[in-house]
Amino acid sequence: MQFHPIGVIHSPYIESGPRQSIPDAEGNFCIVINSEYEKGLFQLDKYSHIYVIYWLHRVSEPLEWVITPHHNDAKPVGLFASRTPLRPNPIGLALVELRQVQDNILHISGIDALDGTPVLDIKPYHPGLDSLPFLTNR
Amino acid sequence: MQFHPIGVIHSPYIESGPRQSIPDAEGNFCIVINSEYEKGLFQLDKYSHIYVIYWLHRVSEPLEWVITPHHNDAKPVGLFASRTPLRPNPIGLALVELRQVQDNILHISGIDALDGTPVLDIKPYHPGLDSLPFLTNR
Repeated sequence: MQFHPIGVIHSPYIESGPRQSIPDAEGNFCIVINSEYEKGLFQLDKYSHIYVIYWLHRVSEPLEWVITPHHNDAKPVGLFASRTPLRPNPIGLALVELRQVQDNILHISGIDALDGTPVLDIKPYHPGLDSLPFLTNR
Repeated sequence: MQFHPIGVIHSPYIESGPRQSIPDAEGNFCIVINSEYEKGLFQLDKYSHIYVIYWLHRVSEPLEWVITPHHNDAKPVGLFASRTPLRPNPIGLALVELRQVQDNILHISGIDALDGTPVLDIKPYHPGLDSLPFLTNR
């Protein structure tokens, strides 16, 4: 299946970024949606948070199935039990704050994406659907 | 950019499904991961919930930029302010309970995907990263 960018992420991260999105990271983070898709943003500003689905376009390292996280004391886990970018389909998912919508530009909180990352989709975040705050992992 | 299925969703929904995932839906819901990716599932069973990213492969209707939700009293919104499957890139996102992992089969709670839906990625759900329960939309 073939997908195409609907926009691009701008971030202060040029060569490398943080391992996870940092909500209060300093710098300018925004998404520029291609102008032909601007009308699809109507009423998005009613949401305080959005999911950003993006293409991890700079990932070119070989896939390792079972990876050791960066924590010193962590045990190896399979890549699907991890948020590593080294995935069969290099798709990134981030939940970010939507601070302002200016025409086709979405100003957002910190996202763990390199400058120039292509965006595949934007979805509104619904706490009722998407939030499970009180889990304990097994 | 080109992506490829890593597995397939089995659900009781043959021709049409619910508008959103229903956690306690009756019937069998599972994801069969292609056997070559099974080792990437190592330790996934430590998580009670996962994100499933999938291809809305049956969507073929024309794209409408501004849509009217099915609620009677709802006002039109842009597609990016909606979870409609009619998107520039037909990518679905669901948060589901991971009930059991049997080799390459993930038994899950109800998901709003038709039987045979191709899966693109599985990511563990971290309440600390992914949960914002106390939002109020604007």
